Amino acid sequence: MQGWLELEVRYSETDPMQVAHHSSYWIWFEMARIAMLDAAGVHYSFLESKGVFLPVLKAKIEYLRSLRFGEKIGIETLGQRMGLSRLVFEYQVFLLPHPRFHPNLEQKILTTTASTEHVFVNSTGKPLRFPAQFSDFFPKK
Amino acid sequence: MQGWLELEVRYSETDPMQVAHHSSYWIWFEMARIAMLDAAGVHYSFLESKGVFLPVLKAKIEYLRSLRFGEKIGIETLGQRMGLSRLVFEYQVFLLPHPRFHPNLEQKILTTTASTEHVFVNSTGKPLRFPAQFSDFFPKK
Amino acid sequence: MQGWLELEVRYSETDPMQVAHHSSYWIWFEMARIAMLDAAGVHYSFLESKGVFLPVLKAKIEYLRSLRFGEKIGIETLGQRMGLSRLVFEYQVFLLPHPRFHPNLEQKILTTTASTEHVFVNSTGKPLRFPAQFSDFFPKK
Amino acid sequence: MQGWLELEVRYSETDPMQVAHHSSYWIWFEMARIAMLDAAGVHYSFLESKGVFLPVLKAKIEYLRSLRFGEKIGIETLGQRMGLSRLVFEYQVFLLPHPRFHPNLEQKILTTTASTEHVFVNSTGKPLRFPAQFSDFFPKK
Repeated sequence: MQGWLELEVRYSETDPMQVAHHSSYWIWFEMARIAMLDAAGVHYSFLESKGVFLPVLKAKIEYLRSLRFGEKIGIETLGQRMGLSRLVFEYQVFLLPHPRFHPNLEQKILTTTASTEHVFVNSTGKPLRFPAQFSDFFPKK
Repeated sequence: MQGWLELEVRYSETDPMQVAHHSSYWIWFEMARIAMLDAAGVHYSFLESKGVFLPVLKAKIEYLRSLRFGEKIGIETLGQRMGLSRLVFEYQVFLLPHPRFHPNLEQKILTTTASTEHVFVNSTGKPLRFPAQFSDFFPKK
Repeated sequence: MQGWLELEVRYSETDPMQVAHHSSYWIWFEMARIAMLDAAGVHYSFLESKGVFLPVLKAKIEYLRSLRFGEKIGIETLGQRMGLSRLVFEYQVFLLPHPRFHPNLEQKILTTTASTEHVFVNSTGKPLRFPAQFSDFFPKK
Repeated sequence: MQGWLELEVRYSETDPMQVAHHSSYWIWFEMARIAMLDAAGVHYSFLESKGVFLPVLKAKIEYLRSLRFGEKIGIETLGQRMGLSRLVFEYQVFLLPHPRFHPNLEQKILTTTASTEHVFVNSTGKPLRFPAQFSDFFPKK
């Protein structure tokens, strides 16, 4: 399953280097995952209310180009099933044209690549099988 | 060069799953790096005031065990030089005994492993050579 | 000058009480101010690039009703000039109808009131006169 | 009841203005409250595990002097009971001498004053009576 999320870099997400702090990206990826689960028919808040959680097990990221306050980005996300209970997401963050900051940008620019690996667990952290309602949405990797 | 930083998980660093949010760790690793540079004789605020920055290029992490509000952790950090301008840090986060939460914990427990790769750059993002004053502290990888 | 900003509460903005952490609101108010200055013709990043800053001097807030992950809010902001260099903002945060969370909410619900007081300063913190280009937008209080 | 908490401003707590972001203070005050309840014999995580919460109802703050990355601060906190279920905290943030940043500072400097008002509630948000075990620690205002 593929997703696309657009947002603008918040002032509070930048640091004294005047660029988005490297920890801010994980917040955006979390939003991208939540939007994707939502598009697959289940809001993450509903999962949690049912005692189903999707913690991060592993993550990696490569920063190719820094991002500044106010810049507009698009996050392309690919979600795939792995094994019995794992869900893997791959992210590409693109700098987008913006009437104020990059009005003449003709093509989106790849700025960051990342991936996260998750497992469905219950409230005590015990792994759960991959929920049936997601099977159609997340193909096997 | 090796470093060790101890801290307690803040309430604001935890999330609705009642554990430290996965983005909180990058803040702690940043503190560990800053403490290590400080121990090597240069505070990071001094570097920045001289127009020298140390952004993150790549990062990866594996979460083995979650951490809860109030738990005490120790971060063991290894910093090594790589090539002409790169600095690589490897982190191990340990759960430590705590008079309130884990009074009888006999051995620290490994909860997380991670690494980050950095390059020294100037204020326009141009890579700089590895600063001479750090050469003794960060052996080649 | 009046402004209106809509957003959804992020997962990372909530805390173990399952509601938006009380510090998250200040991030939203900052976004509301920036959107208002932008509507007045000047993006905050431009001000900072010219060495003009608008730090918070005072702030107060009253939380009437908590907000949960995914809820949609609208922030109504009123900005007024006070004295020679001060800018005062008053905020009202409303819970809005949302197809998933509050589909049948007929009227927006006031959840929070707040205000902040600011002064224009230069990069050394010296107060500046109220910028002329904003005079038309921010009436005297 | 009076408390004192010392900490150093984290890099991630500062913003492009090179000073502690105005929202960071609320995290520190939360830590100060938790430390005070802890000193009164009850860790906040224990309260929450018993279904007792202490949300913020009102807050106000005045920023007198900004704080920079690495500076050491001390937070003096006064906690008092108000009415049947309310707890009021008053905070003073002081800049402290620091071997690196302010080695010759002879007296701590007041940088911020603030207050927060809280009520004990259960998990559904219903106000609870002031817990008996705190009565000795928090005198009436």
